[in-house]
Amino acid sequence: MIAKKMKKYVEGSSVIRAMFEEGAKMAKVYGKENVFDFSLGNPSVAPPSAVKDAMIDILNEGEPSAVHGYMANAGHASVREAVAGSLNGRHGTAFGGEDVVMTVGAAGGLNVILKTLVDPGDEVVVLAPFFGEYANYIANVDGVVMVVPPNTETFQPNLAELERVVTPRTKAVITNSPNNPTGVVYSEATIREMAAILSKRQEEYGTSIYLISDEPYRELAYDGVEVPYLTKYYRNTIVGYSYSKSLSLPGERIGYLVIPKEVDDYGDVVGAAHIANRILGFVNAPSLLQLTVEKCIDTAVDVSPYDKNRKALYEALVEYGYECVKPQGAFYLFVKALGGDDAAFVAKAKQYHLLLVPGSSFGCPGYVRIAYCCDYDKIIRSLPYFKQLAGDYASDSDVCQVVVE
Amino acid sequence: MIAKKMKKYVEGSSVIRAMFEEGAKMAKVYGKENVFDFSLGNPSVAPPSAVKDAMIDILNEGEPSAVHGYMANAGHASVREAVAGSLNGRHGTAFGGEDVVMTVGAAGGLNVILKTLVDPGDEVVVLAPFFGEYANYIANVDGVVMVVPPNTETFQPNLAELERVVTPRTKAVITNSPNNPTGVVYSEATIREMAAILSKRQEEYGTSIYLISDEPYRELAYDGVEVPYLTKYYRNTIVGYSYSKSLSLPGERIGYLVIPKEVDDYGDVVGAAHIANRILGFVNAPSLLQLTVEKCIDTAVDVSPYDKNRKALYEALVEYGYECVKPQGAFYLFVKALGGDDAAFVAKAKQYHLLLVPGSSFGCPGYVRIAYCCDYDKIIRSLPYFKQLAGDYASDSDVCQVVVE
Repeated sequence: MIAKKMKKYVEGSSVIRAMFEEGAKMAKVYGKENVFDFSLGNPSVAPPSAVKDAMIDILNEGEPSAVHGYMANAGHASVREAVAGSLNGRHGTAFGGEDVVMTVGAAGGLNVILKTLVDPGDEVVVLAPFFGEYANYIANVDGVVMVVPPNTETFQPNLAELERVVTPRTKAVITNSPNNPTGVVYSEATIREMAAILSKRQEEYGTSIYLISDEPYRELAYDGVEVPYLTKYYRNTIVGYSYSKSLSLPGERIGYLVIPKEVDDYGDVVGAAHIANRILGFVNAPSLLQLTVEKCIDTAVDVSPYDKNRKALYEALVEYGYECVKPQGAFYLFVKALGGDDAAFVAKAKQYHLLLVPGSSFGCPGYVRIAYCCDYDKIIRSLPYFKQLAGDYASDSDVCQVVVE
Repeated sequence: MIAKKMKKYVEGSSVIRAMFEEGAKMAKVYGKENVFDFSLGNPSVAPPSAVKDAMIDILNEGEPSAVHGYMANAGHASVREAVAGSLNGRHGTAFGGEDVVMTVGAAGGLNVILKTLVDPGDEVVVLAPFFGEYANYIANVDGVVMVVPPNTETFQPNLAELERVVTPRTKAVITNSPNNPTGVVYSEATIREMAAILSKRQEEYGTSIYLISDEPYRELAYDGVEVPYLTKYYRNTIVGYSYSKSLSLPGERIGYLVIPKEVDDYGDVVGAAHIANRILGFVNAPSLLQLTVEKCIDTAVDVSPYDKNRKALYEALVEYGYECVKPQGAFYLFVKALGGDDAAFVAKAKQYHLLLVPGSSFGCPGYVRIAYCCDYDKIIRSLPYFKQLAGDYASDSDVCQVVVE
């Protein structure tokens, strides 16, 4: 008696649940320390101590009804000003607080902006490999998901295909850099070319194509790589952000949208976003968390533990013969599935107690995602198993060898 | 270039914004203390001190990654157990933690359960007068809003009309007691009769009709009135709750759904609700707030200030000749608009610096809502203006008299 629309989700989720339950069962049988769950993107670095200090200050000094009460649907004015000011200082932009909508994480923000822009049948383009939830968010507003196939050489977006996929019905393109699942940072050259393609198509079609830049991993960048700020390259850019990774607060659901004044129909877009935040049931981003990020506006977690994991895992995997583009951001490695079939490879990896996610979940079969947001020690202890797993394929053996007991 | 679906919202909201801006302008001109804004349901009683204590304890003693990290989409297991246990203790129910889904407030919970149950074209019944947002939430899933007209004698639901409005396409009925906007508590007799009607119709049609009980005001009940717990009267009841009023935390967005095991297709409904929480972009209810309500599970705000306001305002208004059903819960009075036209009455009240909400916003024209969640002093200072406003109508004068300067 549930909605027909939800049936397929419930059926699909039972597979994931089965996998999760099997992982939990494995941990019980073999010990938690002998099961290497690389499936979840749950930050392993603790929030900066400034977060706790800020919260306790607010609780001790704030007027409780103001700290916990309703505010405008877009959030506390002071928080929105602080976000705009911080972005301007870092990126040379000129946002005002009125251009910022505080949201229930980036997931909330994406749903808000899609509700704002997309009518049933409108097309929304995603660039494979992409975070699988985008397809669900687009389906929430009955949009049509248009997938740009991956460029598996560099995992920069396949721009020739983007140009083909964009049509007069294209309402938005979702981009995500540093990328989940590849860890690749889209280069400035990529961004410039993408902007040129979208600008050209807008002009040809007489439409507005909004570029939605989903940036939860912006602060997780390594080797001094620069992550271009997209509003500076393409006029119709809307940015979605989350503090889930930069402050390690994923359970708290706090993020924002930036809607720059130069986007087409700015007033309508901002107005509709405020309303969407309300009617979708978010109402507003959690108040205490808004006030907390205001106090921690230029704070971010120490990313060096992720970087250390990245180097250790990447170097070892390449040494063992795995193929993988070197990630410059986020906390994921996207590795070519040995044998070519990602589902089969994931199943085989599980025999070594290595829990990975198939690339098919990201619109990119033939690869697997490894989330390395975990203790360094776990990475190191897992390496022999990755090595043996590679060895299995090198010896061309399809026989299952359960090597961990 | 925004979605066509959003256009009407943006147009409608400019009216509300204009009203809000006029209120702000009035406050500037006449002084904030001389403008009586009774339009917002923002709790005036501060959160219990236990809330602050709980938060500080959690921040000082919890492991930060556990306090602020991801958990299952349905929430922390311990929190869900605590909610179920507390309900069982108070209502003699037998819920388990697995029957509870923590949500981003009641607004989040309602959107989750509607997404779970409703396909495009399915009918969802609301009982006038009703919280206007229900219509927007139903529209989010392309459901059809079916309005049961009000019984303006008692403002108990009009059950004869309910019986007529329910069809084979009815997927759900939303009920809300203590009621916004009337403050009426639905009696046990009402609930029994409603349950009988829905049970009969279910049997006739061979369908499942879910009763969604939206209960943010449950703890705000006066004169010792009992607010029946609906799962005990009707098998297919799902409860939506919020701590916005009971703990005065409306900006924090924390609530839950209870899906009892006896509802039809329990497993699918629970499974789909978890997924809906995720894919709608809530992901999970804010983590620190979940842990906080666990520690404050049997705490509630002192409702005596609301009760004092209620008595003072109700008694004075009746004395001045206003017609109003005596509210037993929530923090609203629903008053018959003098002259009959709620919009005209609201406009006239504004001349006395009394800001009210027209009943049309609640599917019940001819009435106005007064939110009395404010300082007692404000209530008392507003009374002469309510008296003069009534006097205007008594003298049958339509001439505007601006009496406040």
